[in-house]
Amino acid sequence: MLIQEKVGQAVKLLQELDADCWITFVRETGIMRDPMLDYLILSDVTWHSAFIITRSGETYALVGQMDKQSIEDLGVYTHVLSFVEGIKEHLITTLQKLRPRSIAVNFSQTSEICDGLTHGMFLTLKDLLSEIGYDDRLISSEKICSRLKARKTPDEIARINRAIEHTLEIFALVSSYIRPGRTEKEIAGFMILEVEKRGLDFAWDRSHCPAVFTGPATAEAHYAPTDRPVERGHILNMDFGVRCEGYVSDLQRTFYVLEPGEAQAPPEVQRGFDTIVGAIRSAASALKPGVRGVDIDRIARDHIVSRGYDEFPHGLGHQVGRFAHDGTALLGPAWEKYAAKPFEIIEENMVFTIEPRLKVPGRGVATIEEMVLVTASGAEFLSSAQTELILIS
Amino acid sequence: MLIQEKVGQAVKLLQELDADCWITFVRETGIMRDPMLDYLILSDVTWHSAFIITRSGETYALVGQMDKQSIEDLGVYTHVLSFVEGIKEHLITTLQKLRPRSIAVNFSQTSEICDGLTHGMFLTLKDLLSEIGYDDRLISSEKICSRLKARKTPDEIARINRAIEHTLEIFALVSSYIRPGRTEKEIAGFMILEVEKRGLDFAWDRSHCPAVFTGPATAEAHYAPTDRPVERGHILNMDFGVRCEGYVSDLQRTFYVLEPGEAQAPPEVQRGFDTIVGAIRSAASALKPGVRGVDIDRIARDHIVSRGYDEFPHGLGHQVGRFAHDGTALLGPAWEKYAAKPFEIIEENMVFTIEPRLKVPGRGVATIEEMVLVTASGAEFLSSAQTELILIS
Repeated sequence: MLIQEKVGQAVKLLQELDADCWITFVRETGIMRDPMLDYLILSDVTWHSAFIITRSGETYALVGQMDKQSIEDLGVYTHVLSFVEGIKEHLITTLQKLRPRSIAVNFSQTSEICDGLTHGMFLTLKDLLSEIGYDDRLISSEKICSRLKARKTPDEIARINRAIEHTLEIFALVSSYIRPGRTEKEIAGFMILEVEKRGLDFAWDRSHCPAVFTGPATAEAHYAPTDRPVERGHILNMDFGVRCEGYVSDLQRTFYVLEPGEAQAPPEVQRGFDTIVGAIRSAASALKPGVRGVDIDRIARDHIVSRGYDEFPHGLGHQVGRFAHDGTALLGPAWEKYAAKPFEIIEENMVFTIEPRLKVPGRGVATIEEMVLVTASGAEFLSSAQTELILIS
Repeated sequence: MLIQEKVGQAVKLLQELDADCWITFVRETGIMRDPMLDYLILSDVTWHSAFIITRSGETYALVGQMDKQSIEDLGVYTHVLSFVEGIKEHLITTLQKLRPRSIAVNFSQTSEICDGLTHGMFLTLKDLLSEIGYDDRLISSEKICSRLKARKTPDEIARINRAIEHTLEIFALVSSYIRPGRTEKEIAGFMILEVEKRGLDFAWDRSHCPAVFTGPATAEAHYAPTDRPVERGHILNMDFGVRCEGYVSDLQRTFYVLEPGEAQAPPEVQRGFDTIVGAIRSAASALKPGVRGVDIDRIARDHIVSRGYDEFPHGLGHQVGRFAHDGTALLGPAWEKYAAKPFEIIEENMVFTIEPRLKVPGRGVATIEEMVLVTASGAEFLSSAQTELILIS
């Protein structure tokens, strides 16, 4: 089972990082759900709950009485303790037994996936720990969470591959649906039906999954599909992904709508498209364990700028997993909002998107997004890469 | 539009509470979503974003370039500022212009719905504000968030009523499906299909929505329906709700499965059920603006205990809105985990559940959950209340 596997991985990470104890401290997870919970339990918990992983392999679930049975059924926690009035007594007793030198909890300025602890819950935990003089032992679990997210197991990679397969199939189906006059909304509607037919979920907010952009006027404006119709001589592109068995895909494809008499795209469209293909190829061939994302981003950015296009106003690529944006290490520039993410070292078994874009004046946006797995020997494409414009006649 | 209405309500709340400025500060809301966002925007935002409401009625959305258009389209914010590299400059400039005496942000130890700010984002905000010496102006927005959640507008109440209507219809339909031998899972499956047929969502984690419990052995154990079959002489009960237009219902109903030859439930089952009906009636008739939840909970708890049953191991009722548990003021006992919630003053236009329970030995659990609206003159039932056991033959 995935949870068993990830909790086991977490124990090994604590040993690797010389950390004693990692606590995921939550309440009412149906309202806000710490992204780490997907590796710790299957459904939601209501009252204050703590999931404690230790380097010795002993694991504790401290939960409300109503949630006890479903946590015990997981068979993952060596200790399941439940309460009615409050968690305090169990939490204090457990920590007094463990005597951790430090207590890692889920907060991070850099990385949203390592930042599931709310500020109110942080204050509550600090208050509880102060009763046994442990409140100065709280540290960030960023390294634990980042690695747990980043190091995909074979089961996780298989799930991602199934999500990618569905996505590519749906791109293939919609290619014969697109034609001049059809609107962005109609095209999105076709794809949404296909997702539902297959019993899948959407990889992100369904208001713009898929995002469908046609022509030059939409470039980077609306996320949600509009009533704008497909026109000849325009580029159409899509950003789309599905969630399959808890894991997502995130891919983009570029189409060109032929003018009467055209058998291929005009040179400026082809050049823009080829520049994107080249940028992806250069970035992918440099991506391997030990490099930094900022340097990979730079390769693609330079490739595009050196050919006379504006640089893309976002990072080159992000990790993918249970969410479309799902990791700390990022293929991105050294911008304020990315904090330390672009400087993280790339590791084996990370899954990244590579998604540069550029504008072709008067035509639209050329953009491809592929997904790659970092292996010991370099980046391996998980998605069969787009190398030719999809021509719509 | 709902968002327009709630943002307007927020401005009035700031005036009422003599607060200058309220900031909801978020990132990657597809991963974790501050519960206040549903009143501020329609979809998700990706990069660091700040939604600033001021007592003057000026409202600011500071968002990433990719999200700009969809926020502008809302037509709610008087200022929409976008960035590519980072939010810092806009945030500092805006606050320097506003010069707020205090800056309310979403953290709360008491209340999860007022605690959407993660600890990492709190630290980031504090760092940004320290550059202009405003970092000591951060205060909790608990009062703003609680009131914004609690004071349901007519539109919100209408949506809740539609969710309740669907739920009662589905309870009526499933009543003729339940019979001895059918399992909890089959009964839940029937209801799930009905929810999907109507194009509705589930009010909470679908693994236990509906929760179906039959007989004495399940009492308070599993949340999720099991393969346990319905048996004659047992009580069956359900906890169920749907989400309709963003608002939910949360109701429970109790059924009794007649033995051969029985025309009504045996006395101990009837007495248990009647005790629950009586507890709800007493609590509801005392519920009105100005009272405290702890006193309403006490009325129902005493009613049950004085008749010889154990007290229920949870609060009597919670507010309902966009989530099943959706408010600060609670009808609950003074237990550690409820913190100050039971001592909040009840106000007009709050929507509460009332849901006591008790065990009937050898038979199962008697439990009803109704939903009521607090009006100036007292509690008004939104759900048509169960006053008779539903008999299954």
